[in-house]
Amino acid sequence: MTRPYNFSAGPAAMPEAVLQQAAAEMLDWQGSGMGVMEMSHRGKEFMSIAATAEADLRELLAVPAHFRILFMQGGGLAENAIVPMNLSRGGVVDFVVTGSWSQKSAKEARKYAAANVVGSNEADHHTTLPSPAGWRLSSNAQYLHLCSNETIHGVEFHELPDLKALGSDAPLVIDFSSHVASRSVDWSRVGLAFGGAQKNLGPAGVTLVVVREDLLGHALSICPSAFDYKTVADNASMYNTPPTYSIYMAGLTFQWLKAQTEGALTGIAAMEAKNMAKARLLYDFIDGSGFYLNKVAKDCRSRMNIPFFLRDESRNDAFLAGAKAAGLLQLKGHKSVGGMRASIYNAMPLEGVQALVTYMRDFEQTQA
Amino acid sequence: MTRPYNFSAGPAAMPEAVLQQAAAEMLDWQGSGMGVMEMSHRGKEFMSIAATAEADLRELLAVPAHFRILFMQGGGLAENAIVPMNLSRGGVVDFVVTGSWSQKSAKEARKYAAANVVGSNEADHHTTLPSPAGWRLSSNAQYLHLCSNETIHGVEFHELPDLKALGSDAPLVIDFSSHVASRSVDWSRVGLAFGGAQKNLGPAGVTLVVVREDLLGHALSICPSAFDYKTVADNASMYNTPPTYSIYMAGLTFQWLKAQTEGALTGIAAMEAKNMAKARLLYDFIDGSGFYLNKVAKDCRSRMNIPFFLRDESRNDAFLAGAKAAGLLQLKGHKSVGGMRASIYNAMPLEGVQALVTYMRDFEQTQA
Repeated sequence: MTRPYNFSAGPAAMPEAVLQQAAAEMLDWQGSGMGVMEMSHRGKEFMSIAATAEADLRELLAVPAHFRILFMQGGGLAENAIVPMNLSRGGVVDFVVTGSWSQKSAKEARKYAAANVVGSNEADHHTTLPSPAGWRLSSNAQYLHLCSNETIHGVEFHELPDLKALGSDAPLVIDFSSHVASRSVDWSRVGLAFGGAQKNLGPAGVTLVVVREDLLGHALSICPSAFDYKTVADNASMYNTPPTYSIYMAGLTFQWLKAQTEGALTGIAAMEAKNMAKARLLYDFIDGSGFYLNKVAKDCRSRMNIPFFLRDESRNDAFLAGAKAAGLLQLKGHKSVGGMRASIYNAMPLEGVQALVTYMRDFEQTQA
Repeated sequence: MTRPYNFSAGPAAMPEAVLQQAAAEMLDWQGSGMGVMEMSHRGKEFMSIAATAEADLRELLAVPAHFRILFMQGGGLAENAIVPMNLSRGGVVDFVVTGSWSQKSAKEARKYAAANVVGSNEADHHTTLPSPAGWRLSSNAQYLHLCSNETIHGVEFHELPDLKALGSDAPLVIDFSSHVASRSVDWSRVGLAFGGAQKNLGPAGVTLVVVREDLLGHALSICPSAFDYKTVADNASMYNTPPTYSIYMAGLTFQWLKAQTEGALTGIAAMEAKNMAKARLLYDFIDGSGFYLNKVAKDCRSRMNIPFFLRDESRNDAFLAGAKAAGLLQLKGHKSVGGMRASIYNAMPLEGVQALVTYMRDFEQTQA
């Protein structure tokens, strides 16, 4: 039996092979006599699971040796506070606001630092991206924060800005929650990257932080020990009991990612090619239609989250009901934007996007 | 095939029936076409899972209506900061130090408040409990914190102190991480209770907080929004994406707990009777032996975590190797205490403790 295609923005569909392996190992991981949930995080079994997950992620994303990989808790919203508690030194921090997520990040940072908005697409209703050349960077910023893919508004930085070329030494902080591991990362431009797992990495409950070593050790005195990056790094993400099962599931997902191929490409490069093909298929169909509409500028459209509208919004309920009947789930748009949203993360196969396009074409015809 | 008995202190053994149901539903929860990990936390499927889990816990623990039940992230170590950020108002807070966990809690609280240690068992190496009558309570404390079961040292408050009877209006905060749901709670004596899930409730990654409503709304300005109890409560634990799968697993565990019976008893009362019988069996055997030793005073021995020693510690390695071969896992004591530790949480059946006692008796005889 084929499962329905699940377009949830997150928590989101996971690779079927990963779920199958997890189900098979639920009561006994590799002959240990324990399920993964039942293992002490200090035991050799779980230590090997965590170490393998970290090494696989480092290989997949080509994370350089001078970056630490941390598995934390609290998701992106907690990181909105944890980043400034660790990096701001109570000084000035810059934000580029490009949608709901970066907006929330800037607001939360004001509890700990003076947050300047140095670039924004609000005037365009978050359908464009402000060009880095126009950002009014603070001379004394401790870092610049941006959200490299806005899940709700569907805009993505296809290239990360080069702050050095803009005359700034501030480290770049990226919230890559909703497109992590969908493409490669240019770490030479990044100081810290964080992301909740529940889109592309695994189940909700584990947060990935990749941080340049020189940024550790500057937490404010009011930073909880459990969220002090240096404490977390010094304890290999086991200062407090880590979300062990979520890390295991992320590890299985990393193995699935490593096994991806597309022509001569493997791993993340293969995944990126697949993601580009999936996004192109859906955007091309929408752009060629007089019935559907995507409002995001073509040069910054997200490959992961594709918000779209029926030009006649009175047909929305019928569209969603028909989609569900056709095995296409969770297509309703975010309440702040309306319309529809197709989230097509790594785990969504091309066949799922093809099925969506077929349904959209058929629906349009029945409404003629 | 019988699985080995797993005495891990946490993450710990889970009920086999719970793991089996989770494995069976991994790819498709109740015909929804989605696994639980893949559901939007805003969708009706997961909302019903979370609401059922909360209602079942409220019923099991008889949580009064003026307490809120929160599902958070970060475990007990994060709560060590989150509690004072929410409740201390930057003033004075009292601590009773009875082992490693309360010690850590007091240390972390000093980041946010003036923490007084008003009672301690340090002089007795954490093998007794200080009598509440002797606590030197601060007149202006915002709360008094104690750890009602010390996982490492194996001491448990079998009765919670009545602070009102001691002349204090301060709310009592209990860290009940390692014995939550093993017995009933006298909520009339409690202001806030918190616990990581990974001993008695489910997988690591979700933290239970039960808090009296009048204590909400007083967070320090530097408290991250994601950890402000009022924000969490106002959003029904969905301000940030909750650890959905861990909540689901906890919910299955709550259903398993509700189905417990022991004679005429049901639910938590049945579980408590089983736990008392399990602990009695092991303590009685150790006390009757000249080969093994438990150092904790009899009136405050934990029913969950039973540290014990071989009087001849040169036999420790042989004991552990034999135990593993007999299907008795993770019995090594915490490094700070040494010796052995048997954690016999709710999911450990009486048969597991019987098997341990049989092994201990046999081992003693082979060493004669």
